[in-house]
Amino acid sequence: MGRRVAIVGVGHSKYGYRNDVSLAELAWESIKQALNDAGIGQEDIDYVVYGNVGVWSSEPLPAVVINEYAGLTPRGTVRVEAACATGSAAIKLGHDIVASGEADIVLVVGVEKMNESPTPTVVELIGRAGNYFWEFENFGLTFPGYYALYATAYMARYGATEEDLCKVAVKNHYYASMNPKAHFPRQITLEQCMQSRYIAWPLKLFDCSPITDGSAAVILASEEIARKLTDTPVWIKAIGTASDTSNISRRPDFLLRRGVMEAARMAYKKAGIDPENPARYLDAAEVHDAFTIAEILTYEELGFAKPGEGYKLIREGQTYIGGLIPVNVSGGLKAKGHPLGATGVGMAVELTKQLRGEADKGRQVPVKNGMAVANNVGGTGHYAYVMIYSLQP
Amino acid sequence: MGRRVAIVGVGHSKYGYRNDVSLAELAWESIKQALNDAGIGQEDIDYVVYGNVGVWSSEPLPAVVINEYAGLTPRGTVRVEAACATGSAAIKLGHDIVASGEADIVLVVGVEKMNESPTPTVVELIGRAGNYFWEFENFGLTFPGYYALYATAYMARYGATEEDLCKVAVKNHYYASMNPKAHFPRQITLEQCMQSRYIAWPLKLFDCSPITDGSAAVILASEEIARKLTDTPVWIKAIGTASDTSNISRRPDFLLRRGVMEAARMAYKKAGIDPENPARYLDAAEVHDAFTIAEILTYEELGFAKPGEGYKLIREGQTYIGGLIPVNVSGGLKAKGHPLGATGVGMAVELTKQLRGEADKGRQVPVKNGMAVANNVGGTGHYAYVMIYSLQP
Repeated sequence: MGRRVAIVGVGHSKYGYRNDVSLAELAWESIKQALNDAGIGQEDIDYVVYGNVGVWSSEPLPAVVINEYAGLTPRGTVRVEAACATGSAAIKLGHDIVASGEADIVLVVGVEKMNESPTPTVVELIGRAGNYFWEFENFGLTFPGYYALYATAYMARYGATEEDLCKVAVKNHYYASMNPKAHFPRQITLEQCMQSRYIAWPLKLFDCSPITDGSAAVILASEEIARKLTDTPVWIKAIGTASDTSNISRRPDFLLRRGVMEAARMAYKKAGIDPENPARYLDAAEVHDAFTIAEILTYEELGFAKPGEGYKLIREGQTYIGGLIPVNVSGGLKAKGHPLGATGVGMAVELTKQLRGEADKGRQVPVKNGMAVANNVGGTGHYAYVMIYSLQP
Repeated sequence: MGRRVAIVGVGHSKYGYRNDVSLAELAWESIKQALNDAGIGQEDIDYVVYGNVGVWSSEPLPAVVINEYAGLTPRGTVRVEAACATGSAAIKLGHDIVASGEADIVLVVGVEKMNESPTPTVVELIGRAGNYFWEFENFGLTFPGYYALYATAYMARYGATEEDLCKVAVKNHYYASMNPKAHFPRQITLEQCMQSRYIAWPLKLFDCSPITDGSAAVILASEEIARKLTDTPVWIKAIGTASDTSNISRRPDFLLRRGVMEAARMAYKKAGIDPENPARYLDAAEVHDAFTIAEILTYEELGFAKPGEGYKLIREGQTYIGGLIPVNVSGGLKAKGHPLGATGVGMAVELTKQLRGEADKGRQVPVKNGMAVANNVGGTGHYAYVMIYSLQP
């Protein structure tokens, strides 16, 4: 109904332990790449949306500080937060601003510096993104614990094994080994994963995404502007967004996260994708594998497998390039890393490059349908965003 | 260019020291009123934008928690932050979502619980919304200090006096005395203000807005929906938004905040308001009087007075009802209170009620032009939002 919106420039910092740069410098690494990629300057930007959770960083109110450092003053700006789905929320709002006609070109920046706080503190702070007053304060639940609950319930109900979980980690590290921007650009073996120490049974060290610093940026433009700037615009074809309860005990089905399913339903409908067989329409998926079990849950919630059969996809290698649908060939949160505010924007950067045919050697997917899906989840399913990126508007 | 957007429902909690309620309960007070005012239910809402700064509150990631408490699951949601301009940023994004066609009805909620932290802590935390690494860490500047710099510079350059500042406080408390939702619904005398203790010379206790808890909510709808729901839609006619540097030393003119002026220029242009004489087009203004000097600066930045002559407006009583333009007849941040995330939304609620002719007895402005302006400022001018609300689309 609104104007069509395309990605016309992308940037992505090296993800990792980035105490070599300030938050503003880290953001600028991506902003600069995105401006260069789009062939525009700061003066062409109408508005800036920053995705940043930031409760662990020393800069509490970062939007204007980054704006100033990046030469974007006096452009209007805002910071948005939706827990681990922050980056996708920022893209949704950037999209809507351009679609509404209130701006022609919007810069969306996701950035997070998590390693400024010591690791136990960061894990505790992330834990508050579950259900703070009940589950965190009373039961001490943090995220490895939450996803261990998912894993035990899933394994008990459907017969998946710890090996199945580790196979997700092996796949994502395999692709990360070909992604120089990844936090951990190296392969692991199934044995390494299986022998790694338990963090929260049955999840082991290699089932968990790392504490990562990083940034990513996309420049969004109206159709008229996009066609002037580039021959390869990547369109934001559809956005679905939903939420679930904060209390996990108040959800209708623990193993099918309602928010993710509802967001996928919305996005598929808008994009004309058959929800019974979405893989047929899509060349790649980036999904929210904060823990290996989460990738398997997502296979089912996005409709790549029936409920209870997601683990078979990884067991059969169906989510490698050449299988049913390549998933997380960036390395995913698991091995590329998970700098919260950047993650959803990083997914958009990855899929833009994949659709343009510009991904790193060895991990470029075949572009047949010209469409790809990103799923970014906040909390334990609290926030869900599903975006369809496409070569066709 | 996008779809027209109207406010079709408003809600406003009692502002004050609200440790009688949780953050979610406080938000619900406004959400419930807004739903009733619009005559709709939770199931009619398509998306929810929360404005909340929250660095002082025990609930770190509030959007989904409030969504669940208010019966809004599984609607998509996000939290936005733009320091003290958070509420207006939330309205801008809510507006753009509806204008883009991505949603027909969006609920915008501003909420803040600041009194959970002890007062010195809150004042320190707000101080970080200035320039954290340079001005806060090196010079210890917090907000009374920043606005004392504005006041001393203004008084030295233009000859305004401490009495002029206190006259702003007297006006705003006068109107707050007729607003039962105000934090301080009582009058003060000029003598009381002048004899109050210095917080940061020349600013005294009564020159400063209080630490306030509160919430406010507006329901935004597309034109088609709005005309079905109400006979008195209040349209968001125009939005201007800009930023300034975080470092005050890097601004071109200390006493004319570039962000506010740029945001006003944008909004006036879109609304067809002559920037040389905007008061002729407007029935009321709600402006960001976090400190009395800020209201006087805003008179000039919004074009109600020439640079250096803003203090004459309050000296002559021109910003009372019956003068050039009534300003902050809600009581303003100064006396109604300043719960950061709620403030900009509270301004929208106030002006909607004024334009509908539903303001409290004694402080209803004459509705002649059918337009009103809100100006919400974050930091020391870092973020600026100017909104024009109107009875005509």
